[in-house]
Amino acid sequence: MKSVILKISCKDRKGLIAGITNFVYSNSGNIVTLGEFVDPETNMFFMRIEWDLNGFRIERENLQGEIKKLAEKLGFSNSWEIFYSDVKPRMAIFVSKFDHCLYDLLLRHRAGELKCDIPLIISNHPDLKNVADSFKIDFAHIPADDKAEKRQLEILRGYKVDFIVLARYMRILSKNFISHYEKRIINIHHSFLPAFEGAKAYHQAHERGVKVIGATSHFVSKKLDGGPIIQQGTINVSHKDTAEDLIIKGRDIERTVLADAVKHFIDHRIFVSGNRTVIL
Amino acid sequence: MKSVILKISCKDRKGLIAGITNFVYSNSGNIVTLGEFVDPETNMFFMRIEWDLNGFRIERENLQGEIKKLAEKLGFSNSWEIFYSDVKPRMAIFVSKFDHCLYDLLLRHRAGELKCDIPLIISNHPDLKNVADSFKIDFAHIPADDKAEKRQLEILRGYKVDFIVLARYMRILSKNFISHYEKRIINIHHSFLPAFEGAKAYHQAHERGVKVIGATSHFVSKKLDGGPIIQQGTINVSHKDTAEDLIIKGRDIERTVLADAVKHFIDHRIFVSGNRTVIL
Amino acid sequence: MKSVILKISCKDRKGLIAGITNFVYSNSGNIVTLGEFVDPETNMFFMRIEWDLNGFRIERENLQGEIKKLAEKLGFSNSWEIFYSDVKPRMAIFVSKFDHCLYDLLLRHRAGELKCDIPLIISNHPDLKNVADSFKIDFAHIPADDKAEKRQLEILRGYKVDFIVLARYMRILSKNFISHYEKRIINIHHSFLPAFEGAKAYHQAHERGVKVIGATSHFVSKKLDGGPIIQQGTINVSHKDTAEDLIIKGRDIERTVLADAVKHFIDHRIFVSGNRTVIL
Amino acid sequence: MKSVILKISCKDRKGLIAGITNFVYSNSGNIVTLGEFVDPETNMFFMRIEWDLNGFRIERENLQGEIKKLAEKLGFSNSWEIFYSDVKPRMAIFVSKFDHCLYDLLLRHRAGELKCDIPLIISNHPDLKNVADSFKIDFAHIPADDKAEKRQLEILRGYKVDFIVLARYMRILSKNFISHYEKRIINIHHSFLPAFEGAKAYHQAHERGVKVIGATSHFVSKKLDGGPIIQQGTINVSHKDTAEDLIIKGRDIERTVLADAVKHFIDHRIFVSGNRTVIL
Repeated sequence: MKSVILKISCKDRKGLIAGITNFVYSNSGNIVTLGEFVDPETNMFFMRIEWDLNGFRIERENLQGEIKKLAEKLGFSNSWEIFYSDVKPRMAIFVSKFDHCLYDLLLRHRAGELKCDIPLIISNHPDLKNVADSFKIDFAHIPADDKAEKRQLEILRGYKVDFIVLARYMRILSKNFISHYEKRIINIHHSFLPAFEGAKAYHQAHERGVKVIGATSHFVSKKLDGGPIIQQGTINVSHKDTAEDLIIKGRDIERTVLADAVKHFIDHRIFVSGNRTVIL
Repeated sequence: MKSVILKISCKDRKGLIAGITNFVYSNSGNIVTLGEFVDPETNMFFMRIEWDLNGFRIERENLQGEIKKLAEKLGFSNSWEIFYSDVKPRMAIFVSKFDHCLYDLLLRHRAGELKCDIPLIISNHPDLKNVADSFKIDFAHIPADDKAEKRQLEILRGYKVDFIVLARYMRILSKNFISHYEKRIINIHHSFLPAFEGAKAYHQAHERGVKVIGATSHFVSKKLDGGPIIQQGTINVSHKDTAEDLIIKGRDIERTVLADAVKHFIDHRIFVSGNRTVIL
Repeated sequence: MKSVILKISCKDRKGLIAGITNFVYSNSGNIVTLGEFVDPETNMFFMRIEWDLNGFRIERENLQGEIKKLAEKLGFSNSWEIFYSDVKPRMAIFVSKFDHCLYDLLLRHRAGELKCDIPLIISNHPDLKNVADSFKIDFAHIPADDKAEKRQLEILRGYKVDFIVLARYMRILSKNFISHYEKRIINIHHSFLPAFEGAKAYHQAHERGVKVIGATSHFVSKKLDGGPIIQQGTINVSHKDTAEDLIIKGRDIERTVLADAVKHFIDHRIFVSGNRTVIL
Repeated sequence: MKSVILKISCKDRKGLIAGITNFVYSNSGNIVTLGEFVDPETNMFFMRIEWDLNGFRIERENLQGEIKKLAEKLGFSNSWEIFYSDVKPRMAIFVSKFDHCLYDLLLRHRAGELKCDIPLIISNHPDLKNVADSFKIDFAHIPADDKAEKRQLEILRGYKVDFIVLARYMRILSKNFISHYEKRIINIHHSFLPAFEGAKAYHQAHERGVKVIGATSHFVSKKLDGGPIIQQGTINVSHKDTAEDLIIKGRDIERTVLADAVKHFIDHRIFVSGNRTVIL
């Protein structure tokens, strides 16, 4: 089945769902799923609707234009996007030396769990090149220096990358870099944010004597570890666990929390509302 | 806010969502939430839509009739129901001697978590009458004998009860009794079904040496512990836990699993599809 | 079975376990359970050993003295305590207006889960007196003013209270008050600390857009919400949950996390090591 | 640090712990950890004690003999084992075509999480040879026929394998085969046993409409999926999940549940008591 996904976010008003579903129906589309949410605090409306392209009367080359007209009529101009199920998003993975999240993403991808292309892995260290090789993915070793981000941006453009996953990448990205991939850079942080921001989160957790540790996947924003949270998970620990044990236990939860966020992104389920996310 | 909830289940077909949302919009209704699901195996369509009655142009006394017409037009006759947010469902609680689920429901109700009325508690034992008294709820002690179900049905009718919650009620209901409240009797079973059906589930679990115990809330059907599952939860246990410890630990998960199911029912979120539930 | 529990914490050294278990054995004691832990960072040794008093050759009135001698011999003087299984600790509960943790503790106590006496409930508001009454527990309404802590301390002394549980008590205790019950005041905080310290934790959590909320039980220390953590738990939330929903969902986890901590305390399982706890 | 681990299981009696810890102490051993459990139903005593070999007065070649004498004196002959921390158990992994548990074990091993050697992977299919190659582990493709088990046993003996992990191996082992590695074959079953024994567990789960799925690691015994359970885990699912989705979600829990069991085995923490396990 080939389908199209339309994402909309705008001020709530009467008639939006009727107008959009009617547009699909009157063009012989069959709705596969429809998710919507109205934030009672901001009165913002969010909608993700997917319909089968089989039998749909509007040609692909005209759809963008037709939805533009619909958006003007219904009042959601400039706040919508469409995606096709047969156009896979292109993901670049940034890593440093830790390999557990990288392996996890690559194995899930190979198993068919992640419906995206992974043309490129970028690292500030050469260590994980062999992993990239064994999965037949290009690997760019870009050492951390003044020109690193410039080169990263060039190569990302060259590979037509749609979004970036920081799979335990240990460098902080500049505001300029982030502005090129706004709401398109997903990080995994090794704590349940907002607790234990910054480096050495497991050591901080051990020092504080917590009985639960966690991981947080979030969009990267200008505020370090402060971007909109996509997914979080936790795992129990005890006094027997050293900081090193927390690092080991944490890897399991980092992997699943990051993979969940990547899946939500690839499925075009994530909306950003202020500093929060809506997952439809 | 006063709202109306329309639940629909029927064979999937094009135009259902458009037709229904258009009906709401063209009568000046504002949709509060819309949830839908198409079961890919059965091709059944399920929908729960809630809209604000403020400004809605159809009067309450006419709504049933108007939706009947819509259903005929769109082809979902005989498979829809409407509920009003200001008409609270009336719940009867059946208990025997265990009080933990009973207290939990009554305290949640008093705290405003459960938007229902609880006019009646029925028990085959007199033990929990004082609990009913302290919450000012009528208590019917109906000893387990040949005439018990007949009396139960009479009193339930007298109290205009909409649905029944078996809060660790230790008797098996007859097929005849169940037929009067089909898909309207919720039971809490003290295991993760289908493991450990029947009595003494915690003792069975202890005997088997499991490392996880659970609880299951489900609709009561003619097959003992075999009805559609609404919610399940689990909790870790260890070799240190005796069967008695499992009973104690299990109480915590029984309470939350039952409360979740009751909330879903009260909010009109549960659809039964074959022997499975869809929660929208 | 009547038993005695010996808790020891001291610098680790060879022969501690052998010396202590030999003391029990040579006096015909049968060990019920033995838990021990050596903190690799501080080299501190922690031990909880329980033995059956049936057949044990040392009389109760002499045991304190005999263990004192043993402690001098083995080098753990001044860092041990003994408790008898038939001497129930006396717990006072402090509350304000929220009743969910109070009810939970009282119902668990009545069900036999908590092996303690609860002679007294203290509140800065009169609202929950009826709950105390229905469980036949004395209730002291002490309004929050300059003399409140003085009166609280007097009444606690009068009731021979061993430890205090703050069951969503909304006042901050003074350093002086805390010094009277050091490591004997258990609080439940409505977040996974150290995130969201202070008031309105659920509103903070909602504002930050977290996907998991939690609760933390900890000993009260001079640093607000900074004392040694005893237990933590978490529960998933979504964009659909308002701050009010978080408050409702959080109640479930607050209850179990507080009850776990109280059980650990009553069973004499908690050791404080710096700002961390060891649970044996 | 080099240490020795002594595992004991026998009828409970007074003086066991004192006798054993005294043996360690009188030979200048420093206890690292001690875990013990008495099963109240069977009155069986289980103990795992680990002590530092540094400064310990008994030579390695004599330790077996000295503990034999101790066992005779204290009455636990024939029910003890010793293991050295610097002697890694040798694990063989059996696989068919699924690679997720295999990759997980190999990556954890490479990351230093699993303190064992993995000299051999055996499969009834050739598909996963490349995985074995990339981790530089010998791979034996033994097609499923009448002589397969005979060849497996020979090769296992040749590689001096101590224990076997069935990492989603899709064949049933004969009673004869099992008898060669009794309590030394760990299987991962893709359900929370005892629910959904046998093949197609996720399809069974989907059919039943459960809201939670799970995985179980257990020792293989003569009764299919009936051996002593080591670890279990669960994960929430919903009506939206197809049987295929359950398979994908289940992989995550299979991996961690199997890894936990393997770690417990490698650390010599598992005791079998009837059809249950004690993990110390």
